[in-house]
Amino acid sequence: MDRRKFLVGAGLGIIAASAPISISAFGAPTKKTTKSGRLKLSFTPFELKLRHAFNLAKSSRTSTPGVQVKLEYEGVVGYGEASMPPYLGESIASVTKFLSKLDLSQFNDPFKMEEILAYVDGVEAENRSAKASVDIALHDLVGKLIGQPWYKIWGLSLDKIPQSSFTIGIDTPEVVKQKIKEADDYKVIKIKLGLDNDKEMVDIIRQCTDRPICVDANRGWKTKEQALEMCEYLADKNCLFVEQPMMEDKLDDTAWIRERSPLPIIADEVFHRLPDIVKLKDYYDGINIKLMKSTGMSEAYKMITLARAFGMKIMCGCMTETSCAIAAAAQLSPLIDWADLDGNVLIAQDVFDGVKVIDGRVTPSDKPGIGVTPIKGLYPEF
Amino acid sequence: MDRRKFLVGAGLGIIAASAPISISAFGAPTKKTTKSGRLKLSFTPFELKLRHAFNLAKSSRTSTPGVQVKLEYEGVVGYGEASMPPYLGESIASVTKFLSKLDLSQFNDPFKMEEILAYVDGVEAENRSAKASVDIALHDLVGKLIGQPWYKIWGLSLDKIPQSSFTIGIDTPEVVKQKIKEADDYKVIKIKLGLDNDKEMVDIIRQCTDRPICVDANRGWKTKEQALEMCEYLADKNCLFVEQPMMEDKLDDTAWIRERSPLPIIADEVFHRLPDIVKLKDYYDGINIKLMKSTGMSEAYKMITLARAFGMKIMCGCMTETSCAIAAAAQLSPLIDWADLDGNVLIAQDVFDGVKVIDGRVTPSDKPGIGVTPIKGLYPEF
Repeated sequence: MDRRKFLVGAGLGIIAASAPISISAFGAPTKKTTKSGRLKLSFTPFELKLRHAFNLAKSSRTSTPGVQVKLEYEGVVGYGEASMPPYLGESIASVTKFLSKLDLSQFNDPFKMEEILAYVDGVEAENRSAKASVDIALHDLVGKLIGQPWYKIWGLSLDKIPQSSFTIGIDTPEVVKQKIKEADDYKVIKIKLGLDNDKEMVDIIRQCTDRPICVDANRGWKTKEQALEMCEYLADKNCLFVEQPMMEDKLDDTAWIRERSPLPIIADEVFHRLPDIVKLKDYYDGINIKLMKSTGMSEAYKMITLARAFGMKIMCGCMTETSCAIAAAAQLSPLIDWADLDGNVLIAQDVFDGVKVIDGRVTPSDKPGIGVTPIKGLYPEF
Repeated sequence: MDRRKFLVGAGLGIIAASAPISISAFGAPTKKTTKSGRLKLSFTPFELKLRHAFNLAKSSRTSTPGVQVKLEYEGVVGYGEASMPPYLGESIASVTKFLSKLDLSQFNDPFKMEEILAYVDGVEAENRSAKASVDIALHDLVGKLIGQPWYKIWGLSLDKIPQSSFTIGIDTPEVVKQKIKEADDYKVIKIKLGLDNDKEMVDIIRQCTDRPICVDANRGWKTKEQALEMCEYLADKNCLFVEQPMMEDKLDDTAWIRERSPLPIIADEVFHRLPDIVKLKDYYDGINIKLMKSTGMSEAYKMITLARAFGMKIMCGCMTETSCAIAAAAQLSPLIDWADLDGNVLIAQDVFDGVKVIDGRVTPSDKPGIGVTPIKGLYPEF
């Protein structure tokens, strides 16, 4: 007698049927999960207030617009989110407009992820963070239906997760020192350069900590000579790599820097989606994958395969996000070289539990899906 | 009260604990699956007798050496197999020697697939079909622990599976006619050319059927001019593509053919593992992925991502295999352009249930893992 029949026979059929995460347990998962129910998407705008004003080479801000997303199927809820720093060209209006266009109720089988995500991707050309919010929620949902976290579904080991950096915005020495203190859990410090006071900033950091640093120039360096000089300077300061030294269109200058730089040169603003990897492989040493650029976990996973085939380095970054999108990225972080997954710590108030910093590594929980739980009273009702 | 507590409270704890596939149901999968048990590998030589002698451009044979593999973890068994057509350089002796070297009991968590397969791959440089047998068994095992077939874990839809070809070996017209009759389930005929009577062979096929054909030249054409002439001839005969027109080292000749050929040119013997794709992309239009060359499902899945990024065509072929390895390949076939998964029909006696030909599509079952069941009395005891 199989377990399903046994449970029903023992009068437990109702409990078995009403425990949504247990769907995969009864040996006939396909019949159980594909034939009934429809995907139901809901969302709400949700502004993320920042703990500190975020000063980049070209902008400053105190909050990041966001949208929280739920994808429901037969009582199981997958969580996702979009985070829209202004430089990516998305907003609460554009994301909610995009999500309103989607008709996910046409799908009655959440396992057909490739088909569902191809549909979502095809609705508009851009809207990458909006697409990411659906992708993350779908992964969370399917992982819950499967009963496993994605790092396990992908066959990965948590002990392969690299230590994450913690980003320190450009600021006064006093504030920087305070931020370094707050970053005590993290073993690597990331700094945003590309202004006139770069070396001063590095000096301040080096007065406060001897932890390795990594540098994001945020397109701020004006000439290839200046960029190379900075790379050489930083190599002496225990720096691991340099992101986006110059503007996106300066590909030849970047290749020139890369040829001479003692530090790996990583593509960030110039890099968005899978096909960009083929275009960038001769100009950059590596890529910075962010779920809000990649349209989510599915394409990010493919990016890793492709970049590895070219021998490229891989880092995984984030926007200012809740632990929802951070946990999603953490699921695939055992595959990468460098993690920069601190977005949930940069916001004033997280609304999810689901990642822990263990020995500097941003580690997902062992719960199914992306492994997050909304925090009661903080997660918005919708 | 959660389900696990409920079951234990109701006196059903023993049943819950002894139902291996239900591990994922209780909300704490990691603790349950990682801390106890060890992987246990066992295997036995198993010769596959062919239904018809298999005549290729350069060889003929009546059986294929094989090895059947089991990978066990806490009472759950994953099935795999190696098939070793002589031209790949493996044998029962080399496969069993390789498998004997493996110490999989060092692993207590089958979900760490990347780590386990990296270990297997590192034990020797070659032994690709031996590695594939472990990879397939591991996928079957983990899919069973998850409770889902791999096509669902990968987010794929069965209705995206392309129609499979059925291979007709070079033979007398009488035998060819008989074989075409046997291939009635299949909508595409594959023929092996590369001998002196190629056009005669095509004529025989076209006397028997108007189904589309695809052609595997098996390196048999001697000059690029002869190969191009055949491609042009075949394009008029409702042929879909041509595999491996010339020897592996004739890359420039192949690029010359490809530039002029009305039919896509697919890499087979020249193509084995993931890094080959980068090398071959400028010479071939596509690749023929076979699990016995790719070392299994994990690398095959990555191959698809990589080849797609280059805009390459993808076919998935097979050796003479039981439904075990065929079902494994069928799991990822929704991602490919052309399937050539007839190996289980070419053997005299299959020992697994697990794939069905539905409207010409080789379709896996909805059972977890690779979805196969050993046939009692036929599957060898070991």
